[in-house]
Amino acid sequence: MTIRVTVWNENVHEQESESVAERYPEGIHGAVAAGLEEDAVDVEVRTATLQEPEHGLTEDVLAETDVLVWWSHCANHEVEDDVAGRVVDRVHEGMGFVPLHSGKNSKPFKRLMGTTCNIKYRHGGETERIWVADPGHPIADGLEGFFEIPSTEMYGEPYDVPEPDRTVFISWFEGGEVFRSGLCYRRGRGRIFAFRPGHEEYPIFYQDEVKQVIANAVEWAAPTEGAEAVWGESEPIESIDSSADE
Amino acid sequence: MTIRVTVWNENVHEQESESVAERYPEGIHGAVAAGLEEDAVDVEVRTATLQEPEHGLTEDVLAETDVLVWWSHCANHEVEDDVAGRVVDRVHEGMGFVPLHSGKNSKPFKRLMGTTCNIKYRHGGETERIWVADPGHPIADGLEGFFEIPSTEMYGEPYDVPEPDRTVFISWFEGGEVFRSGLCYRRGRGRIFAFRPGHEEYPIFYQDEVKQVIANAVEWAAPTEGAEAVWGESEPIESIDSSADE
Amino acid sequence: MTIRVTVWNENVHEQESESVAERYPEGIHGAVAAGLEEDAVDVEVRTATLQEPEHGLTEDVLAETDVLVWWSHCANHEVEDDVAGRVVDRVHEGMGFVPLHSGKNSKPFKRLMGTTCNIKYRHGGETERIWVADPGHPIADGLEGFFEIPSTEMYGEPYDVPEPDRTVFISWFEGGEVFRSGLCYRRGRGRIFAFRPGHEEYPIFYQDEVKQVIANAVEWAAPTEGAEAVWGESEPIESIDSSADE
Amino acid sequence: MTIRVTVWNENVHEQESESVAERYPEGIHGAVAAGLEEDAVDVEVRTATLQEPEHGLTEDVLAETDVLVWWSHCANHEVEDDVAGRVVDRVHEGMGFVPLHSGKNSKPFKRLMGTTCNIKYRHGGETERIWVADPGHPIADGLEGFFEIPSTEMYGEPYDVPEPDRTVFISWFEGGEVFRSGLCYRRGRGRIFAFRPGHEEYPIFYQDEVKQVIANAVEWAAPTEGAEAVWGESEPIESIDSSADE
Repeated sequence: MTIRVTVWNENVHEQESESVAERYPEGIHGAVAAGLEEDAVDVEVRTATLQEPEHGLTEDVLAETDVLVWWSHCANHEVEDDVAGRVVDRVHEGMGFVPLHSGKNSKPFKRLMGTTCNIKYRHGGETERIWVADPGHPIADGLEGFFEIPSTEMYGEPYDVPEPDRTVFISWFEGGEVFRSGLCYRRGRGRIFAFRPGHEEYPIFYQDEVKQVIANAVEWAAPTEGAEAVWGESEPIESIDSSADE
Repeated sequence: MTIRVTVWNENVHEQESESVAERYPEGIHGAVAAGLEEDAVDVEVRTATLQEPEHGLTEDVLAETDVLVWWSHCANHEVEDDVAGRVVDRVHEGMGFVPLHSGKNSKPFKRLMGTTCNIKYRHGGETERIWVADPGHPIADGLEGFFEIPSTEMYGEPYDVPEPDRTVFISWFEGGEVFRSGLCYRRGRGRIFAFRPGHEEYPIFYQDEVKQVIANAVEWAAPTEGAEAVWGESEPIESIDSSADE
Repeated sequence: MTIRVTVWNENVHEQESESVAERYPEGIHGAVAAGLEEDAVDVEVRTATLQEPEHGLTEDVLAETDVLVWWSHCANHEVEDDVAGRVVDRVHEGMGFVPLHSGKNSKPFKRLMGTTCNIKYRHGGETERIWVADPGHPIADGLEGFFEIPSTEMYGEPYDVPEPDRTVFISWFEGGEVFRSGLCYRRGRGRIFAFRPGHEEYPIFYQDEVKQVIANAVEWAAPTEGAEAVWGESEPIESIDSSADE
Repeated sequence: MTIRVTVWNENVHEQESESVAERYPEGIHGAVAAGLEEDAVDVEVRTATLQEPEHGLTEDVLAETDVLVWWSHCANHEVEDDVAGRVVDRVHEGMGFVPLHSGKNSKPFKRLMGTTCNIKYRHGGETERIWVADPGHPIADGLEGFFEIPSTEMYGEPYDVPEPDRTVFISWFEGGEVFRSGLCYRRGRGRIFAFRPGHEEYPIFYQDEVKQVIANAVEWAAPTEGAEAVWGESEPIESIDSSADE
C-alpha cells in the first residue's frame, strides 16, 4: 500500500544563506523528498514549507498524509499554534511523525513529548558515529553496526525527553559526548521517530545511510488499522445493582 | 525530610451543589489534605483553589511545593494557560504531580502526557474493584490484593495516554468495563502518578485505602536530588581534528 | 512475504479427555492452524507436538519457523530443557513467539521473561470481556472496542511478568477479576505476544475474534531484517592515546 | 532503616594474578564493601565469595540480604545452578540486585533478563566518559553531568538486553564506541541496576564517583513494602451466572 508522505521544511536557511542554498538547491525538503523517492519501497511524496498558506499543512493536506517528515530550526517559533495543534491531532489519529535534527524543538514534537527536549550542542563540525543499539528494529534495516557522519553539529546528553519505547541509535561524538540519536514513541495511534542527524551546514541528507534510515522510518511510522475506539458516555454492559448505591 | 504538599482543587462543585458541600464541608481539598496529614509520614500540607489569585499557584507557592495533588473536573478550561505552564515547568524541575480523578483532563496533565487522555465514563454509581497489578510498587504499600469503592462513576478503556512506566492499579467495574487506575510517569525530573478514584458525588476521599494510596503517592513522587544537568552550547572535551572537516 | 508458522501443542488433554477430543478433533494445534490458514494474509502453517521426537522442534524445523505459536498446560515440565533453550535461542535471533493461555507457564516463556509468571485462576466457566486498551496496535486490527468469551477459565492479577512494551488487551471477568490479556515484549530480535484466551474445555479457538487476534499476532511477530550485530572482541576505530594509560 | 548488603565476588583473579592481588588486597568484594561503608547512608555490609560453601549464598544469607552487589567474570559458569536460581527467587521476592561489570554475564542476571547480554569488548585500557542521561534519577544523586574513568576495558553496543525501564548512564569510549552503562529493571518485586564499570585490572572501585553510584544504587534497590500478592486458585468475588455457561 502506498504511503503518502509529506516532507515539511521551514525553508529559511536556504533563503538566507548562500552556502546552504548551494548545498540544498531544492531545499532540505527537496533533498529529503528525493531520497525517499529513491529508497522507500512504495511512497508518494509531497513537500510543504513554512512560507505557504497555513504552512502548507491544511486540514486537507494532513488528512491525506500518512507520515509527516519535519525539518525545522531557526523558525520553530514562527509555526502557528493552530497548525502545530492540527499536526498533533493528526498524530493522535495515526499519522506518523518523523522530526529530523532540530525538529526536536518544533512545537508539535514538544507538545507530543511533554518535556523541554533540551540538549547540549556545538557548532563547528566534528565526526559523529551512529551506533545501532537495537539491531532488531526495522528502522535499522539494512545497516551495518554503525555509520559515520564525517562532519556535523554535536548534540549531547542529557536529552530531556520521556524514556523512549525503543532506543534505536546512540551517537558517539569526536568532542567527547554521546546522544540518543534515534528514539521511538507512540502517542495515541501515531508512531513517532526522532532522528538526530541533519544540520543545514552539511550535506547529510545526501548520505546513503541517512536516506536509508529516513526511508525505514517512514515505512515503520505508517498508520496501521487497529481497533475501533469509542470514548465518552457509555451504557453499562452488565446490569448494575442499584440497591447497593448509597 | 518533610515533604511540602500543596493540594489544589477547582472547588466549584462544593459551591454549586448542596450535596457536594455537605459531603465535603471543607472542600475536596480539605478532605484530601486532612487525609494526608493523617496518613503520610512527614508532610506539611497547604491547599489552593481556582478562585484564589493566580489560582493560588504563584511562583512562590510552587517553588515551595514538593508534590502537587490536583483535583479538577468541570472547570479544567478555566485554569489560566500561564498557571498551567508554570505547573508543567515545575514538574520538569522535579515537583511531583498527582492528578486525581478527572484531574486527568487538566491542562497540566494533558500537556505532560501529549495525548488526548480520552476515556469512557458513566455516572450513576456502581461498584469499582481496584486490583493491585504491581504488588512490588511503593504506591501499593500496605494494601491487600484489591480494594473496593462501593459506589462511583465509571471510567473505561481505552485510556488515551502514553504507555506508562508502571501500571500499579487496574479497576474492574460492575457495569462491565476495566480501567488502568494508577499509572506512573516521569517527565523531566518530575514523577507523576495519575489516580482514578474520587468523584465529587461520593465520599471516596474519606475511604482508608484511598487515603493510603494518596499518601503513598506523595511519598513516591517527592523530588530526589539527581545529578547536575547542563544544557546549551558546550565546549569540546576531546580535541577535534579540524583538518577532517570539509 | 510468506510467514512460516509452526503451531506447537502439548496435545495431552486431547488424548486423555473425551470431551476435549470431541471439541478439538484435530487437536488444539489443528484448530489454531486451521484458523490461521483462514485468517492470516500469507502464511504457511505446520504443527508440532510434545510427543514427536525432539517435540517436533528440531533445529531444522525452528530454522524454518518465522513465528512459533505455543499451547501448553499440564505438561509444561515435560518439555526437554534443551528444546526449550533452542526455542529461546531462536527468539533471540528473531523468531516470533506467541504463547497462548497457559503457554505463559512454558519453559521458553518463563526463561524469556525472567519472572515467575504467576497468576490467580479459577476453573468452572464464566464470562470474559476482553477490552482493547491499545486501539492503535496492529494486533487489534479489525476488532471492535471489546469482545466476549462466553465461558472460560479465569486468570487474575497480579500477573508476575516484567512491565510490557505494550498492553494491548485487558480482560474483565464475571467473577470480579481483571487481567492483562495481551502483552507485547521483545527479547533480542524476537517479538513476543502473550495472549490469555484458550482453555481446552471451551471452543475458544473457533471464535472469530480469537482467530483474528492470533492471525494479527503472527503478522506482527514475524521477523524483520534489522541491522548487522557484531559481538565480541573489537579493534578500536579511533586511535587510543596509550600514554594516558596507567 | 538499615539496608543489609551482601557484596559477592567470584574472587578468582585476586588469587591468580599478582597485579590484581596488589590492586585489590582485600579482594574486589573488600574494596566495594569498604566503599559502601564509607558512602551509603545506613548499611550493614557483609561479603561472600565463590569459594565458600554454597558460594556463601545460603538460604539464610539471602534471607537476610536486602541488596546483593555482584562481581564476576571468568568464573561465571562455575556458579551452581541452584545457587543462581536461589538468587533469582530472592530478587522476585524483593531483594535488590546490582551486577557490576561482567556480572552482566552471570547466571542470575542472564536469567532475570531472558536475553544473551552480549556486547563488544576490548582489553588494553582507554578513557571512558560516563554521561548522566537521566539526571532526575536517584542513582545519579550528587554527580556532575559526567565522570571519567581514565583507563578501562571497553564495552560496546549493541548490548543485548531488554529495553530498560530507565537508562541512567551512557558511556563514551576513546576507541570510538558507546554503551548503556547504567540500566534499571524490575523483575517481580526486585529492583535491578546493571552498572558497567569495574574491570579487575584497574583501580576503578576506589574512584569516588564509582563508589557514589554503587552506594546510590544500593539505596535505590532496597526492597519496599508493597501490597500483598495472592496467587493460585481463587474463589469468585461476584456471583457467576452459571446458567449462561454452555
